[in-house]
Amino acid sequence: MLYLSKKDIFNLVSFDELIDSIELAFRIYEQKSFQMPDRIHLHYRENTFLYMPCFTEDIIGTKVLTVFPKNTDKNVPVIQGLMLLNDVETGKPIALIDGASLTAFRTGAVGGVGIKHTAKEDCQSVGLVGAGVQGFYQLLFAAKVRDIKKIYIYDIFEDKLISFKEKLLEKLTDVEINIVNNTRELVEKSEIIITTTTSEKPVLPDDEKLLKGKHFIGIGSYKPNMREFPEALFKLLDEVYIDTDFAAEESGDLVIPLEKNWIKREQIKTFGKLLKDNDIKSDTTLFKSVGMALFDLVVANVIYSKAAEKGVGQKIIL
Amino acid sequence: MLYLSKKDIFNLVSFDELIDSIELAFRIYEQKSFQMPDRIHLHYRENTFLYMPCFTEDIIGTKVLTVFPKNTDKNVPVIQGLMLLNDVETGKPIALIDGASLTAFRTGAVGGVGIKHTAKEDCQSVGLVGAGVQGFYQLLFAAKVRDIKKIYIYDIFEDKLISFKEKLLEKLTDVEINIVNNTRELVEKSEIIITTTTSEKPVLPDDEKLLKGKHFIGIGSYKPNMREFPEALFKLLDEVYIDTDFAAEESGDLVIPLEKNWIKREQIKTFGKLLKDNDIKSDTTLFKSVGMALFDLVVANVIYSKAAEKGVGQKIIL
Repeated sequence: MLYLSKKDIFNLVSFDELIDSIELAFRIYEQKSFQMPDRIHLHYRENTFLYMPCFTEDIIGTKVLTVFPKNTDKNVPVIQGLMLLNDVETGKPIALIDGASLTAFRTGAVGGVGIKHTAKEDCQSVGLVGAGVQGFYQLLFAAKVRDIKKIYIYDIFEDKLISFKEKLLEKLTDVEINIVNNTRELVEKSEIIITTTTSEKPVLPDDEKLLKGKHFIGIGSYKPNMREFPEALFKLLDEVYIDTDFAAEESGDLVIPLEKNWIKREQIKTFGKLLKDNDIKSDTTLFKSVGMALFDLVVANVIYSKAAEKGVGQKIIL
Repeated sequence: MLYLSKKDIFNLVSFDELIDSIELAFRIYEQKSFQMPDRIHLHYRENTFLYMPCFTEDIIGTKVLTVFPKNTDKNVPVIQGLMLLNDVETGKPIALIDGASLTAFRTGAVGGVGIKHTAKEDCQSVGLVGAGVQGFYQLLFAAKVRDIKKIYIYDIFEDKLISFKEKLLEKLTDVEINIVNNTRELVEKSEIIITTTTSEKPVLPDDEKLLKGKHFIGIGSYKPNMREFPEALFKLLDEVYIDTDFAAEESGDLVIPLEKNWIKREQIKTFGKLLKDNDIKSDTTLFKSVGMALFDLVVANVIYSKAAEKGVGQKIIL
């Protein structure tokens, strides 16, 4: 069995390969050639255990994550875990991959794919609301799929922004990175806006004029009580793109607009379908992702295949 | 993170320590100082994925097993998997333990604890119906808790018995091991009878006189349609001991006797309660185990603690 760390992942796969893997996962999703049981959440004290199994014709595995919110006080990542890949013929464990890094990479790649297919080709600016690990990878992938010259960042915890900017400058040396004081300024200056918060109320101004013509990528809201986008946005949209059908039941950014009739169910379209039809309707766009185990499985398989081919990773004798 | 193989487990913990761990698990079970969500079964083709999470005050973890029935054709173990232990404070993965060996060891130890507390002190003979991996460990532990001089083995697949006997003789050098032709002979000659089959009908003769005064350990039946024990046995019992309350819903050896009114629910008692009260009622006894994640967790923790202390195991850099 192989163990593959964050560093191994970085060395093994390029951002382009990760983007390709996510596009492949979207195609598998549309073809329905997979089995993905509901993700399993278990609660222990204030913490959560998350089991995300998925099986395709060729790949089977499970991501097991822990979410320990108090880890922030201890300077330990809140999300930790492992992706386990099993041999499709015998079930034998064949690889373990660092779950936190896999999650960050694949979520970044999902956002990147969203931008690649919904944002205008010539976009040069991107704004990020929520300066955490997910936001960091979102920006790296944004800069991969568009020729980004300017980044605007905002977080309600201002003190996070300095070090976030410094870390980002190490990876994106040619980009101008600006800290802004509020999300109005952020939206004004950005063509693409990515949100990665756990907010329970909209983080952007409820102002149609401000939001018009922009491209929104929603990563944060993954529970029905979480919301990042205001009512005004939905008035500007012909369609909303989602990564998986259950996003419409899981995310408050879809649950609430549907309840309040700001959008209708038939306006919500899976991203895989958009990839196939390639028929963006409006100049304002929203791609909302809640993530799914199929992304982890497909990306993990690419990482593992390259590791096996190149002899990379820690070998564990079972 | 540490990886601990079958060999590591063998070298790290004694049978006595495994028996102590299972007794500890039974006490934790009675005190209800744990959380054990229902085990999760997922089906993929003809195969099963099994997730068994459990959390106590001090230990948290999950056993992930695959059951691939066609592996027998490939000479690969049907059950494979990993036990993952997480740090109780942060969720960080701290150990992975070979899941198949852990299962075999702990199930053997559960049977051993059953014999230790239900069988007469001076028993010297044990019969096993079902010559598989679980049966093998059952006999090793039986020989640990009683001064066993004679073993009788039976399997419907007779060709398994020769190599089973040879393997067993390597571990139990002082014991006489006999292959018998039927289970009537096996019960006649044995004081303790262990069953580890997946049979859907009783594997022992329905004969009160034959069964009277013997000690039965049921390991096999773990689904409502599986049964190993005949009606006659239940007429001889004042009480049935079970490892967990849900055994009464999961095992056909309890579900069917309850339905048919051969026993009443109030005659079924958890083994942890027996350990506390120490009040065996009849000279014929039955201990029925279906297993639970709490056993895996407690045993895994003992293995891990000893490994960490002695510097044993493969170190994985996360």
